[in-house]
Amino acid sequence: MTGTLTIAGLGPGDEALVTPEVSAALVDATDVVGYAPYVARVKLREGLTLHPSDNRMEVQRANDALRLASEGCRVIMVSSGDPGVFAMASAVFEALEAAPQWQGIAIRVLPGVTAMMAAAARAGAPLGHDFCAINLSDNLKPWSMIEKRLRLAAEADFAIAMYNPRSVSRPEGFGRALSVLKEASCGERLVIFAHAVTTPEERIETVMLHEARPEMADMRTVVIVGNSATRRVGSWVYAPRHAR
Amino acid sequence: MTGTLTIAGLGPGDEALVTPEVSAALVDATDVVGYAPYVARVKLREGLTLHPSDNRMEVQRANDALRLASEGCRVIMVSSGDPGVFAMASAVFEALEAAPQWQGIAIRVLPGVTAMMAAAARAGAPLGHDFCAINLSDNLKPWSMIEKRLRLAAEADFAIAMYNPRSVSRPEGFGRALSVLKEASCGERLVIFAHAVTTPEERIETVMLHEARPEMADMRTVVIVGNSATRRVGSWVYAPRHAR
Repeated sequence: MTGTLTIAGLGPGDEALVTPEVSAALVDATDVVGYAPYVARVKLREGLTLHPSDNRMEVQRANDALRLASEGCRVIMVSSGDPGVFAMASAVFEALEAAPQWQGIAIRVLPGVTAMMAAAARAGAPLGHDFCAINLSDNLKPWSMIEKRLRLAAEADFAIAMYNPRSVSRPEGFGRALSVLKEASCGERLVIFAHAVTTPEERIETVMLHEARPEMADMRTVVIVGNSATRRVGSWVYAPRHAR
Repeated sequence: MTGTLTIAGLGPGDEALVTPEVSAALVDATDVVGYAPYVARVKLREGLTLHPSDNRMEVQRANDALRLASEGCRVIMVSSGDPGVFAMASAVFEALEAAPQWQGIAIRVLPGVTAMMAAAARAGAPLGHDFCAINLSDNLKPWSMIEKRLRLAAEADFAIAMYNPRSVSRPEGFGRALSVLKEASCGERLVIFAHAVTTPEERIETVMLHEARPEMADMRTVVIVGNSATRRVGSWVYAPRHAR
């Protein structure tokens, strides 16, 4: 039996947002590897072994998946959202680079609906003009780089999607990010807090940046800061297609 | 009968990337509105009327969809990829803002897999670190704004996904975009040209920026410029999660 590794995105939460391509890969798999809350979204069945792991174990998890595939398993590595956006795909290629013996394994990456797209759809169309996506976690990069990117993104007048804005172990960064954006004269921009989008706990809140407070976000929140032209129509928020 | 308007993304091309949520909305619809090549992706059936329209007719198309919904139809507006990324969602809200009589219509936006995510999955994980998405069409914004954003994106060391890089009516811009990035010292960055991703015409090509030529792109290409750390492992291209 030849092993394979499929790196798949389960979408933001709702089963109706799992692509048929990913559903078919789950049917075909012998082993599911991933962060425990994402593995828990996969239905257990005969012939399928689940390998849940803890947060921050990305490289070990990637090595486990590659080893299982090298042993002949059909492994599916599951991420929430899209596996290529602040998720497991990069970690797998990092592990692969360090392990030449596994570089012959057949790997596929299956895209998914990432959280900012689902959040934008709920809010209206805040990503309808040029935008950027920034991971606010400073576990793997210096905080100064995050601040620099926020300043340049504001200067470029991008809409800004912020992933992983705030966690128990990083309670301070998001407040600093809001301050950086306020200093960059973004106070009058609209900000969307999208919590647990497409799950039963979904909560969407839109405020002006100068009204935004750090505690409005947690690790299950994606925050989208509009560009300078982003506006409301009724309960919707959208970025106009035109810009001057 | 109460009319509704559903703004849906069909994904990049492969039917296996259409979400079940969108498939269900297509079953429920009475009318499909959209740019002709996207409407052509919907299977005709009894009780379903197709309303294909030409390119660049976005606002008229949005008005047509809203009018049909106001008359009691269950309208689905289809875009390729995600409807909120350089697609029809913003145009609908723009039309809605100008038409208070339609602001009571029940509207839903259904996300999809946008082209850059599908392209990134085919290439590896080039969007695994912070990134931005820029529409290179200057139909609705001045070219100077595009150049400014490219310069700032390079300075921020974002990976850069470029949509609509080149068309028959805009043959020159993409070459200028490549020059701007070369001037911004991005010559040694990896660039992925992803043409018609997930369709039978798919073609993925990765070169160094200094080797990139304008004619490598057309309107069906998404171009992803890696960040300064983006690298190859075997045939894959990925952005490391760490940055200094």
